[in-house]
Amino acid sequence: MESKYFANRRTVRTYSDRTISVEEIEEMLQLASHAPNTGNMQQYSAIITTDEEIRRRLAPAHFNQPTVMGCQAIVTFCLDFNRFEHWCRLNNATPGFNNFQAFTWGVIDTTILAQQFVTIAELRGMGTCYLGTTTYNAAAIAEVLELPDRVVPVVSVTVGWPEGEAAKSLRLPVEAIVHRQKYRDYSDEDIRRAYAEIEADPTSDKFIAENGKETLAQVFTDVRYPGSANEPFSRLYAEFIKKQGF
Amino acid sequence: MESKYFANRRTVRTYSDRTISVEEIEEMLQLASHAPNTGNMQQYSAIITTDEEIRRRLAPAHFNQPTVMGCQAIVTFCLDFNRFEHWCRLNNATPGFNNFQAFTWGVIDTTILAQQFVTIAELRGMGTCYLGTTTYNAAAIAEVLELPDRVVPVVSVTVGWPEGEAAKSLRLPVEAIVHRQKYRDYSDEDIRRAYAEIEADPTSDKFIAENGKETLAQVFTDVRYPGSANEPFSRLYAEFIKKQGF
Repeated sequence: MESKYFANRRTVRTYSDRTISVEEIEEMLQLASHAPNTGNMQQYSAIITTDEEIRRRLAPAHFNQPTVMGCQAIVTFCLDFNRFEHWCRLNNATPGFNNFQAFTWGVIDTTILAQQFVTIAELRGMGTCYLGTTTYNAAAIAEVLELPDRVVPVVSVTVGWPEGEAAKSLRLPVEAIVHRQKYRDYSDEDIRRAYAEIEADPTSDKFIAENGKETLAQVFTDVRYPGSANEPFSRLYAEFIKKQGF
Repeated sequence: MESKYFANRRTVRTYSDRTISVEEIEEMLQLASHAPNTGNMQQYSAIITTDEEIRRRLAPAHFNQPTVMGCQAIVTFCLDFNRFEHWCRLNNATPGFNNFQAFTWGVIDTTILAQQFVTIAELRGMGTCYLGTTTYNAAAIAEVLELPDRVVPVVSVTVGWPEGEAAKSLRLPVEAIVHRQKYRDYSDEDIRRAYAEIEADPTSDKFIAENGKETLAQVFTDVRYPGSANEPFSRLYAEFIKKQGF
């Protein structure tokens, strides 16, 4: 039964008018908070935004993806050392978290919380969508949500009840992502076999044609995730993280 | 029913002799791979290690935590741009992923995969334990597992059938980690209220006494996660990531 859910899950970007209360989202976050985290320090926060005006201000940071205004709530998951360090200061303790390890475990723990929330929501029949734009425009999001120092947005998730049937994405065959005992590098033939089903899918031809490219790989490297966008956004995120004290 | 599992889950470090086949771990990873990821690029790999000799070589990188030798398998989850970029090269596409954004979404996507695997294993009654040491000693782990350039360990998870009843960790009250609409910063009183239950727990007094400290916060800042350890491990991880081409 669980297997069936996990094998069939899909991202849902379009939601019906059926409401989800802030209280229910909070209850799902409470359940999600039992997920593992580093040393039980819980260095994360989740901001539930339902207010239309605030969402309208968040939308450009998420490239105006329609799901931001069309969802019941957007939950912005942030790594948060502000709360823990405040507790340290009240307890005569000197924190040493202004470094890359703390940043990394913060990203990991925040993501675990977000994914546990997504699973809980989806098991209840709700639909969710991660917004990868969160790390692109973290500084703009921080301004709208009034994040203090030591708090950095990691992922945002929109939630609502599904409208219609969302498409299911193909995945690589499991043997392409799993290694036994040690890593075994891929031959050209391994790579061709791994991507064969995805390349043969009709949606791939559609992507290639729509974007005027020769290959599906070029859609990713030239249109969707080009270095020319990744690099400036990398500098922006690195600057923002530094500003937040990491 | 799902609520009961999520509210009661706990980390399990001690396992019985009951076996789990590599095939079942692979099947659970296959289910987990339907979790969301950036642009469906699946830039991650999971390495299942059961071999005793290889685990013996991994153990020091994980500070010889007994769970490494006592589990049925250790799964090392890595962000992996090697496979995707190989596919790009075969398809006349020039990847632009040697930057901080790609590293960050790699960490996020790899963690989502790991957490989905953990949930699937736990729903089957298995026990799991994350090893945070993975980012401390990533270079040593990469050497044992023969990771090529563009592959970076993010988290490791041990898995097995629980032996005995693992203790459940307390969590902060949900209102301490959730914010409505925008972030609202904490007063001293908010912080005291948030940590009151954890501070009052008998295990906290035990930690303070065992470590010869004055407050629970000092156990975290002076003993478990001191800046004097976080900083050199930060430099090591940053150097390794650079070496791997980010």
